[in-house]
Amino acid sequence: MREVFQNELKEVQDRLVEISTDVTNVMKNATIAFTTSDVTVADQAIASADAISEKALTLDELVIRILARQSPVARDLRILVSALRMSASLERMGALASHIAQIARFRFPGSAVPESLMPVFVEMGKLDVELGNKITKLLANPDVDVARSIQAEDERVDELHRGVFETVLADSWKENAMFTVDVTLASRYHERFADHVVDISAKVSYLTTGEWSE
Amino acid sequence: MREVFQNELKEVQDRLVEISTDVTNVMKNATIAFTTSDVTVADQAIASADAISEKALTLDELVIRILARQSPVARDLRILVSALRMSASLERMGALASHIAQIARFRFPGSAVPESLMPVFVEMGKLDVELGNKITKLLANPDVDVARSIQAEDERVDELHRGVFETVLADSWKENAMFTVDVTLASRYHERFADHVVDISAKVSYLTTGEWSE
Repeated sequence: MREVFQNELKEVQDRLVEISTDVTNVMKNATIAFTTSDVTVADQAIASADAISEKALTLDELVIRILARQSPVARDLRILVSALRMSASLERMGALASHIAQIARFRFPGSAVPESLMPVFVEMGKLDVELGNKITKLLANPDVDVARSIQAEDERVDELHRGVFETVLADSWKENAMFTVDVTLASRYHERFADHVVDISAKVSYLTTGEWSE
Repeated sequence: MREVFQNELKEVQDRLVEISTDVTNVMKNATIAFTTSDVTVADQAIASADAISEKALTLDELVIRILARQSPVARDLRILVSALRMSASLERMGALASHIAQIARFRFPGSAVPESLMPVFVEMGKLDVELGNKITKLLANPDVDVARSIQAEDERVDELHRGVFETVLADSWKENAMFTVDVTLASRYHERFADHVVDISAKVSYLTTGEWSE
């Protein structure tokens, strides 16, 4: 029975890793779409986010079946409850990345981001993709050092997010309202994406160390 | 044993109703703060949202303890898993309302919303408070008619949200970038708040009717 359960937990973990890989690819494509106005890549990102929703739903059903069959307690129970929450975070990350791709799609053939902010969004996208890769790694193999570097990278994303607001609210900002709206929302989506990575990372650390760091 | 379990489920339900009531009050105060630049009410909203996070965390712990003690299956298990998700949605709704209050706080003593959009934000706030009241009612006592009216009200919030973008992107929009940023984000928060109400309502309906409507 224990061995069956361990195999089931492994299956849950593998699927989380798979979804996290997909999510990271969506953010990669969304960033390309947003910073190069590539509508084909935008469409790919949007379609992949829908597929992620399906995978998350299927994973949730698997977790509920395991809960019903195995009636786990203590740490095993917490792993499964955490899996449900991580699946929800990953699904949301896919949706946030998809929103960024949708902005790019909507402004096509124009750009959603003015030249002055281009480097910021290139870096934000790069950081979010890195965060995605790190959370995938962490889900596959818990490692306290990776968890720590996630924290630092999230702080950099927050800093860039605040920088976007400073740029937009400065007297020197002469772009039209469309640019203002697009960069405000896209920056917010990047920031939320990174927040979810931190949330997932806290859950993985909790399961590994038993200590919850909010 | 069954009676103990029923009492525990009732306790979970009561707490969801309590948190939902709190969340609705936060949105009420956030809307007052946002549309009348009342900084005291904004502070109240922000503090209450923090208290909601605590209550949601405590509720989650209770649900996990029940799962461990009772090892529920079938519908009982799904009720508890849904409770965890509803608690997450309610917490997020509190945070979204708090963000609206924070914008008001940040712009004080100025207004975060120009006169031209004031009626829209008054209506959005009113609708979100109504949605909050309805989801509280639904959590206390599942009712298909209430679920249906939630759907209709969410559509109206979406319509207003799109209207904000249309206003901001029109040639007639002459407000500065600060207003553009504030109304873009606040409108988005209102829309997400309503989305979460729809999510919770779908879960309640599912538990009542056994049919999942996405």
